[in-house]
Amino acid sequence: MAKRGGKARIGVLGAGGRMGQGIIARVLETKEAVLAGAAEKPGHPAMGRSIAPSLVICANTLALAHSADVLVDFTTPDALEENLTAACDAACAIVIGTTGLAPKHHRLIDEAAKTTAVLQTANTSLGVTMLAALVKAAASRLGEDWDIEIAEMHHRHKVDAPSGTALMLGEAAAAGRGVKLSNAAVNARAGADAARKVGEIGFAALRGGSVAGDHMVILAADGERIELGHRAESREIFVRGAVRAALWLAGKPAGRYTMNEVLGLDA
Amino acid sequence: MAKRGGKARIGVLGAGGRMGQGIIARVLETKEAVLAGAAEKPGHPAMGRSIAPSLVICANTLALAHSADVLVDFTTPDALEENLTAACDAACAIVIGTTGLAPKHHRLIDEAAKTTAVLQTANTSLGVTMLAALVKAAASRLGEDWDIEIAEMHHRHKVDAPSGTALMLGEAAAAGRGVKLSNAAVNARAGADAARKVGEIGFAALRGGSVAGDHMVILAADGERIELGHRAESREIFVRGAVRAALWLAGKPAGRYTMNEVLGLDA
Amino acid sequence: MAKRGGKARIGVLGAGGRMGQGIIARVLETKEAVLAGAAEKPGHPAMGRSIAPSLVICANTLALAHSADVLVDFTTPDALEENLTAACDAACAIVIGTTGLAPKHHRLIDEAAKTTAVLQTANTSLGVTMLAALVKAAASRLGEDWDIEIAEMHHRHKVDAPSGTALMLGEAAAAGRGVKLSNAAVNARAGADAARKVGEIGFAALRGGSVAGDHMVILAADGERIELGHRAESREIFVRGAVRAALWLAGKPAGRYTMNEVLGLDA
Amino acid sequence: MAKRGGKARIGVLGAGGRMGQGIIARVLETKEAVLAGAAEKPGHPAMGRSIAPSLVICANTLALAHSADVLVDFTTPDALEENLTAACDAACAIVIGTTGLAPKHHRLIDEAAKTTAVLQTANTSLGVTMLAALVKAAASRLGEDWDIEIAEMHHRHKVDAPSGTALMLGEAAAAGRGVKLSNAAVNARAGADAARKVGEIGFAALRGGSVAGDHMVILAADGERIELGHRAESREIFVRGAVRAALWLAGKPAGRYTMNEVLGLDA
Repeated sequence: MAKRGGKARIGVLGAGGRMGQGIIARVLETKEAVLAGAAEKPGHPAMGRSIAPSLVICANTLALAHSADVLVDFTTPDALEENLTAACDAACAIVIGTTGLAPKHHRLIDEAAKTTAVLQTANTSLGVTMLAALVKAAASRLGEDWDIEIAEMHHRHKVDAPSGTALMLGEAAAAGRGVKLSNAAVNARAGADAARKVGEIGFAALRGGSVAGDHMVILAADGERIELGHRAESREIFVRGAVRAALWLAGKPAGRYTMNEVLGLDA
Repeated sequence: MAKRGGKARIGVLGAGGRMGQGIIARVLETKEAVLAGAAEKPGHPAMGRSIAPSLVICANTLALAHSADVLVDFTTPDALEENLTAACDAACAIVIGTTGLAPKHHRLIDEAAKTTAVLQTANTSLGVTMLAALVKAAASRLGEDWDIEIAEMHHRHKVDAPSGTALMLGEAAAAGRGVKLSNAAVNARAGADAARKVGEIGFAALRGGSVAGDHMVILAADGERIELGHRAESREIFVRGAVRAALWLAGKPAGRYTMNEVLGLDA
Repeated sequence: MAKRGGKARIGVLGAGGRMGQGIIARVLETKEAVLAGAAEKPGHPAMGRSIAPSLVICANTLALAHSADVLVDFTTPDALEENLTAACDAACAIVIGTTGLAPKHHRLIDEAAKTTAVLQTANTSLGVTMLAALVKAAASRLGEDWDIEIAEMHHRHKVDAPSGTALMLGEAAAAGRGVKLSNAAVNARAGADAARKVGEIGFAALRGGSVAGDHMVILAADGERIELGHRAESREIFVRGAVRAALWLAGKPAGRYTMNEVLGLDA
Repeated sequence: MAKRGGKARIGVLGAGGRMGQGIIARVLETKEAVLAGAAEKPGHPAMGRSIAPSLVICANTLALAHSADVLVDFTTPDALEENLTAACDAACAIVIGTTGLAPKHHRLIDEAAKTTAVLQTANTSLGVTMLAALVKAAASRLGEDWDIEIAEMHHRHKVDAPSGTALMLGEAAAAGRGVKLSNAAVNARAGADAARKVGEIGFAALRGGSVAGDHMVILAADGERIELGHRAESREIFVRGAVRAALWLAGKPAGRYTMNEVLGLDA
């Protein structure tokens, strides 16, 4: 579906959530976009809340898809199928930022991508997307005499380690090197017999304060190190990247896209 | 010229200098290489010094070129023409790490590259070469809302600032962004009116201790930063990179090559 | 004046400013404190605004001082005299975070400190206060063979360089070493003749993105470096430190105090 | 024993080891010191080796102690008792850098310190000693809302994790906070249930390349972080610190001393 009047009409799914609210605010202040509307699941406390003049949060995803060029979906895996169906029926593009997807969800996405444009990503930050591409490039060019280590720091309340983004960077490094991360990853070195093996990709997690998310990939050889890092100041970067992805996706032909392509990188 | 017996025969020019001595030592411990010999300019105190069984430092560059597959040249700009002529006459490849080259030297190199394989570089470190390629890639993909700053630290005795490597990284950033560095560079911010202008590439130099050379390129947008850095522990990395470049260049057809190609990167 | 009922009654001057608003919000959620009221200068647009049940922003600083144990003053230098007079008349402690003070203002503060408790500081962050103390300690113990450099990064809109906090850290380093900063400071190294002189304290400023404020003090000797840094995620830390200073100051005898003492450090 | 002629006479134990050789070289180029001699255990391959005009490595520790103001001992725990006895008999001070000491060795040191000046340390680097003191000071002043994490990176061949220096920094942090490190330390966070508990001191180890040793202690609160780090470029810093400790110790009265005191810090 082509953009009308030069502006992409964006519909927001999961409008009551933290990401949804951020995306609504961002769309409202983005010149190239217009807010088509926002939806939540039936019964959500945000239902009926006013988000802009003559716009309230509704429960009708299909109607929203019909009035939008692109949907942005930060909901839950069990809402995915309905959201994809609405996008396909309305020939509306869709950006999926929902996390926790299983293989069956990826199959649904592949199927929908035959009908409309779908961009799914675990991380909508432009900086992290760029960093992962750089890590892959470096790992593919530098040999196994460059040891790869990944350190990250997050706030004190984060329960899992390493972070999803650290694992994504590890996947990029492993892909660059042509190995499987699961065969190379070492999760936390400790003890009297913690020597490094050739080819390992080591992870180290630091937790403390309110750090939004710092990541560093180190490639260390004899006598020199390359350090490729990213620092997030706040979650706002994920909102910004999601809106940029939506603007990029609106009007694209059917197919499955990635954040890399938003940046003009190889898929 | 093809490699004989699977080993590249390497000849070292500037054999009495710090880089030359390092390269001789490195070649002697490199399985894939054999030391063809070493030369210095006539009258150099190192002349006649023994560097290996039945090998002494000599003054005959042409004879050395005839017995080598590749020369490694860390001398001075005024020795360049003779070195290139010897390489061409003997159909021997040549790696040029001499610094301080002027445009006329680059014309000589271009001319020689019609006859033999020539690789010229201002920095033979594999890590710095890789980093520059990553910086260029990042700058070309991220828009002008990502401010670029370059910080470096070197030992207390370094007289120039910013470092040549910092400028090389700045050139990579400018090339990625499609601008000229001379139009974008800001050399050291200070004062009450030091606000940043859009598109600037800022340099900051720290000096102290015995730091061999740390560089960091920062790309900073609203809410996030990418930091791309390199740390050198010692000058040994330049030796290692020079020998790797020589191994790579030996046997290549005539043409002008770069360190990027040694790493399999775009020229 | 003693705290009543175990809670310090805090009055906020400059209530319409960014820091004032933050402090009001912080006091309202602080168990050990109660909001005594808030003032602005006559004619300020915030005048009369409701800030809590039965509390509006008023213009009567003296009345506010009489109902408070401690005032927190983030206003302008020209309001300082009136604010100090009110504090003295009401025997109310006062925290002064106003910046841009001249020597005459410091004389007013010294005078008021004979009558009531006054804490003046250029930076209310606990972390920066701690860091400055550590820098002073390190500089006083390590000799002149440890070169001192100070790097900082702030958002792209900051107009002055180096930052006030970088200068404060430089003062701490100079004090530790027993020299005057004005004799040791070098503001931005650049050029072909930028060699380091013994005893210099170098500053380097980076600008970009939305960085709230990163600072690093490097002490570099032959073969090793100590790096003492601080990263601010947001301006909220200045609010938090100001409220902590107010809680600490309430009830103290007359005298001039510093942030160092809030942390139990030497004044 | 007083220094003669203004120069401290230094005797080196373990003269054939890496540290011993470095210390001999350093003493020879130190104006304030003179090399009294050097010893190794009987049968060591270095025995009889010439180290300076009219000085060879000998096996007579007691004779060496009689001709020296201070011994520097980098040997093995089982040589400690003989070395201490020689120092006491000759009334010669002794710096002990030998690692792997057990409680019984510390009892021997305490006993010897009644007779002569003994300085024992696990790390002779001035920078690390200073850093540990700063970490202790920071931890003692900042409350438990400042989470403490310690990250370190070493070369790929290091077998234990975390490093001994990281543990020493952890001890400093725990001492500052008034807790036992063994109760607070968490060695490597990983898994789905890796949330941080209040008061934890977390360790993270990175391994790769030829890194001589980088350490960083992070104190992270809401909205801000203090980062206190040390970077070693080579083992030479341990040599330098050992010689400085020897110069400081020569002529001191009997007692047990620490590296902290060499820097003028509290013991």
